[in-house]
Amino acid sequence: MHSGADLKRIVLGVQYDGTPWRGWQTQPGGGTVQDTLQGALRKFTLTDIATTCAGRTDAGVHALEQVVHFDTGLDRELFSWVRGVNAFLPPSIAVRWACEVPHGTPDDFHARFSAVARTYHYVIYNHPVRSPLLAGKAGWVFRPLRVEPMREAARHLLGTHDFSSFRAAECQAKSPVKTMHDIRIERQGDIVVVTLRANAFLHHMVRNIVGSLIVIGNGNQAPLWMKEILECRDRSRAAPTFMPDGLYLARIDYDAKWALPHDAVNPLPWASTTLPAHA
Amino acid sequence: MHSGADLKRIVLGVQYDGTPWRGWQTQPGGGTVQDTLQGALRKFTLTDIATTCAGRTDAGVHALEQVVHFDTGLDRELFSWVRGVNAFLPPSIAVRWACEVPHGTPDDFHARFSAVARTYHYVIYNHPVRSPLLAGKAGWVFRPLRVEPMREAARHLLGTHDFSSFRAAECQAKSPVKTMHDIRIERQGDIVVVTLRANAFLHHMVRNIVGSLIVIGNGNQAPLWMKEILECRDRSRAAPTFMPDGLYLARIDYDAKWALPHDAVNPLPWASTTLPAHA
Repeated sequence: MHSGADLKRIVLGVQYDGTPWRGWQTQPGGGTVQDTLQGALRKFTLTDIATTCAGRTDAGVHALEQVVHFDTGLDRELFSWVRGVNAFLPPSIAVRWACEVPHGTPDDFHARFSAVARTYHYVIYNHPVRSPLLAGKAGWVFRPLRVEPMREAARHLLGTHDFSSFRAAECQAKSPVKTMHDIRIERQGDIVVVTLRANAFLHHMVRNIVGSLIVIGNGNQAPLWMKEILECRDRSRAAPTFMPDGLYLARIDYDAKWALPHDAVNPLPWASTTLPAHA
Repeated sequence: MHSGADLKRIVLGVQYDGTPWRGWQTQPGGGTVQDTLQGALRKFTLTDIATTCAGRTDAGVHALEQVVHFDTGLDRELFSWVRGVNAFLPPSIAVRWACEVPHGTPDDFHARFSAVARTYHYVIYNHPVRSPLLAGKAGWVFRPLRVEPMREAARHLLGTHDFSSFRAAECQAKSPVKTMHDIRIERQGDIVVVTLRANAFLHHMVRNIVGSLIVIGNGNQAPLWMKEILECRDRSRAAPTFMPDGLYLARIDYDAKWALPHDAVNPLPWASTTLPAHA
């Protein structure tokens, strides 16, 4: 055992394809990203290491850059926390970077509590026929989508609101009030990317918002419908939860004082919409 | 049984993710794209239908638009050959379009023999750390690649040559002489896409050329090395066969008289390099 003073706090940037996994959070029986990452850390260090992430993702949801921290008394080069751990991870999960943050002060860095904003992409494939090359990687909408009404609808969600209409029943957040900083909707050929940035998201919030945006993009509701369902704070009024396939946890923002690296380039150039940093 | 006069010749555009399959061509024990497509045709029509494709792809190789033909006496709407067959196909394979061509004349359309050119993309992920979101979908090169020397090397391959240096031992082509119409190499962030267009390709020819281009892009050989290995017509002189993960059969060109549809938009916008039609 190590005393607190001996421990380092290591932060990892972790990318994963969520398709084969039962979500981030450890579960009895395993099969989650956290179980698999902790298993690789155990093989690499021969010790048990508990990890904490910035945003728990559901089954089938991907991460371009999940942020994870853990404490350890072990002394390893930072690049070893990347290459060494990756040697024990399957192709669908990789550590992309590692850094160390100060530890042992009252305002320690915490992957979840220090995060000031989260960005998600939802990638929609909008074509009459499904694409095998996007299976599991994009939500499929076969009816034509018009992005202008979707953008108009999205504007009603900006700012601080009670998002109960887009909140899953099992959501454990203390408050349904969140602040949506930005929503961008871009089309590139048959791909429509919805990028959302908020201080935090409720459970299923992105998939529920995207489901409602699709109803509007299909022309089945007017843009003002989004304002109505937001204001009635009733989950039953919004569209059903859209499939997880196209959802990517894209970026977690922290105070610049932590000097965390970020992957310079998104491996999905078609989801490269970057939102301005939180002021 | 139908007499030849009763038969129609149906042409399909087929897209697939090659990762889970043992290549295109039917094999004892199954597990190939052709076996799976023919199984879906059997379920849809309750008859046995033999298919012929434009370009047989290896295990793990993808197709944006493989072209397939078959003969049948059945009378179905063209959209049924898309939606009806897709209902029996797994997520990794889909029929994207169907059309009918004249049948019973000496110069019938043939998916393989009528093709005048083939286009392949090879997608390389060039980053120090592998990307789970591109696993199976891109070849990974962790050393930095310089595309300018790769472009200079590729120019030596343009025109009509004996491509024996890039030919697999098991290649069944009658002649190693092929005509390379165009090679383009484009970088977008960490993605490098090599697009090759030729009248036909030998077995493993794209993966062997890409392997040699990478040796040049890494700076381990000069661009002129490509000319040397081409001219010596000796497979042992070129680089090893590169991994199948990043290889996409992108497009088959036919005479305009067949009026085949083409998917208007590539579902991989980062591999959207289009080559001019064969003059």
